[in-house]
Amino acid sequence: MSKMRRVAIVGVGMSKFGELWDKSFRDIIAEAGLMALEDANMESKDIQALYGATMASGKLIGQEHIAPLIADQMGFKNIPATRVENACASGGTALREAYFAVASGAFDIVAVGGVEKMTDVSTSSATTALGGAGDQEWELFQGATFPALYALMARRHMYEFGTTEEQLAMVAVKNHENAYKNKFAQFHNLITVDDVLNSKLVADPLKLLDCSPITDGAAVVILAPLEIAKKYNDAPVEIVASAQASDRIALHDRETLTSLKATQIAAREAYRQAKLEPKDIQVCEVHDCFTIAEIMAIEDLGFFKKGEGGKATEEGQTKIGGKVAINTSGGLKGCGHPVGATGIKQAVEITWQLRGEAEGRNTNAEIGMTHNVGGSGATVVVHIFKRV
Amino acid sequence: MSKMRRVAIVGVGMSKFGELWDKSFRDIIAEAGLMALEDANMESKDIQALYGATMASGKLIGQEHIAPLIADQMGFKNIPATRVENACASGGTALREAYFAVASGAFDIVAVGGVEKMTDVSTSSATTALGGAGDQEWELFQGATFPALYALMARRHMYEFGTTEEQLAMVAVKNHENAYKNKFAQFHNLITVDDVLNSKLVADPLKLLDCSPITDGAAVVILAPLEIAKKYNDAPVEIVASAQASDRIALHDRETLTSLKATQIAAREAYRQAKLEPKDIQVCEVHDCFTIAEIMAIEDLGFFKKGEGGKATEEGQTKIGGKVAINTSGGLKGCGHPVGATGIKQAVEITWQLRGEAEGRNTNAEIGMTHNVGGSGATVVVHIFKRV
Repeated sequence: MSKMRRVAIVGVGMSKFGELWDKSFRDIIAEAGLMALEDANMESKDIQALYGATMASGKLIGQEHIAPLIADQMGFKNIPATRVENACASGGTALREAYFAVASGAFDIVAVGGVEKMTDVSTSSATTALGGAGDQEWELFQGATFPALYALMARRHMYEFGTTEEQLAMVAVKNHENAYKNKFAQFHNLITVDDVLNSKLVADPLKLLDCSPITDGAAVVILAPLEIAKKYNDAPVEIVASAQASDRIALHDRETLTSLKATQIAAREAYRQAKLEPKDIQVCEVHDCFTIAEIMAIEDLGFFKKGEGGKATEEGQTKIGGKVAINTSGGLKGCGHPVGATGIKQAVEITWQLRGEAEGRNTNAEIGMTHNVGGSGATVVVHIFKRV
Repeated sequence: MSKMRRVAIVGVGMSKFGELWDKSFRDIIAEAGLMALEDANMESKDIQALYGATMASGKLIGQEHIAPLIADQMGFKNIPATRVENACASGGTALREAYFAVASGAFDIVAVGGVEKMTDVSTSSATTALGGAGDQEWELFQGATFPALYALMARRHMYEFGTTEEQLAMVAVKNHENAYKNKFAQFHNLITVDDVLNSKLVADPLKLLDCSPITDGAAVVILAPLEIAKKYNDAPVEIVASAQASDRIALHDRETLTSLKATQIAAREAYRQAKLEPKDIQVCEVHDCFTIAEIMAIEDLGFFKKGEGGKATEEGQTKIGGKVAINTSGGLKGCGHPVGATGIKQAVEITWQLRGEAEGRNTNAEIGMTHNVGGSGATVVVHIFKRV
């Protein structure tokens, strides 16, 4: 690989996540974008290229071609604007394209925004739209929606490793605790293990409170070469690794149901790029679309041995103050999951953590990670960030 | 900008374009992909990263997340696979991301595939899906489909410059003549100016034969650093410019209806990168989604003065053997327009032209160009190619 430039995050912003009945797709991306511009002490004219992430705007709001729409909305005049889509990993993938755009020297200042407006359609329409992240012909068409696919993984994880429904529930309880401290989060209600266990069964063994919600939301990050980052922000955060891997799209074609191979491959590559090990990561936003997904992620990322993610959760090792703080934002479960925005929101949260700006939930971390999954694991994107 | 590597096309492939009732999305992308691998003397394992382009697979076949699906289908194991979408410019935009991936040194061998399966839904559903390329709230929702938007441009071009309906028709006649010589093209019927003028009115002044069709199809290109390109193919084609620009998404926000500003900006940037002028381009695939679009394109790209595109067409200057051969493949009108695949197909055709492999329609050109438009011009991507 030829010499790449070092890249830093110099501005972040996000909208409130939730059921935003009174706001449009355009409103929320502009809200996040203006916050990021202000954070970077920039004006619209400073942005040289834009990457936009959304998963299913075609089905959810009838709108494709969202990147120039965002550029238009933000007053980014005539710049290259490109939409990137990799299902629920659209945000992480777009961040990676933006990272390369700066690292390669093609552009200096690049914005990347993720946005999804999911509440304009019925929940069943949203579920069908999300099903497009899996294998439409072999999974969704046969009735295997995403809760069903992750339920298969959960059941197998319980069978192989003795993971319990209570341990799954503890992921949700922790993530609601973290979300409670995040003013941008969708949920500000504390829940108990019993609440989760007694919530409506969605796909055995997953109950309603094991599942991330339907959410409207947007998040924006602005990147610049590290060498000029302090011109824009006193506390830049360096992106020290950007890795992506894919896997067979249909679950039935995989070697195992209890690991995401793409997580393992992307993580290995990210650690190599950053010259770091799992023990160096102090705070991590993982892709907890379902509680089982967080347990598999903390194993596949190397924080805990395979099969011990449930136990580690039960022991509180993933709480703020534990071995590694997982999903301080509240994660997808507590903060909400506007699918195209999630990968960018993860980077926003880690930036706040490394700057010490995560009010009420600071970890004082110097090194953080994001883990963004598309579908049931056909795409995984891992980034590592470092306080400068 | 830091030093980028020179990049070449070392393999191309495409499926037959048309109404492929007996083939699926997966079949046609695999067909194009295998042809490209063979052309590059490569195996699946040689591909290090994949970019996939589709515009509206969510609405057309219920499938998002198509990049890992294509990787899966092609046996590209666990590599980064990213979907890029910019409406009908998805292909050109994906080619540009792939170009940067190689130019930056991030990867050596990168495949980029475009595919759209459009005939699995009704024509009205396809028209609605395509409407997502414009401004959904301000245009499509009000009934302004794409034929209507381009009809506005046509009417204004006729008013300002005296362009005639006959001249518009001549674009379609020429492109059917070229398609007649292309075995991959959707249409192999020669048409006359009278045929066009007498075809059903779609949106005044555009008739059915002024419009590109609904098409199934796929195209794939494989890129490598120029310095090792001959290892894979005796006749590599260098990409000497890759430029992209955006514009206001809604037509009513533009300064003019008779030019695409994004074409002018992207073309200027492309000529600058390649150190070339419009007169140097010998063969060009332009985005003729409607006949008026070709006339505007050949003006905005600088081949003819603004307002003289109709006259130049009438004089035969855009035919094979004319001043600049436009749409030797048959263009979107004659070859067909599977929206996500079109930008890649344009690069396939130019590669064949520069290699002298465009059977029956060779121009003996050394320098070629592609011009790919998203929506009514909110995205434009221009590439310039050179025989090595």
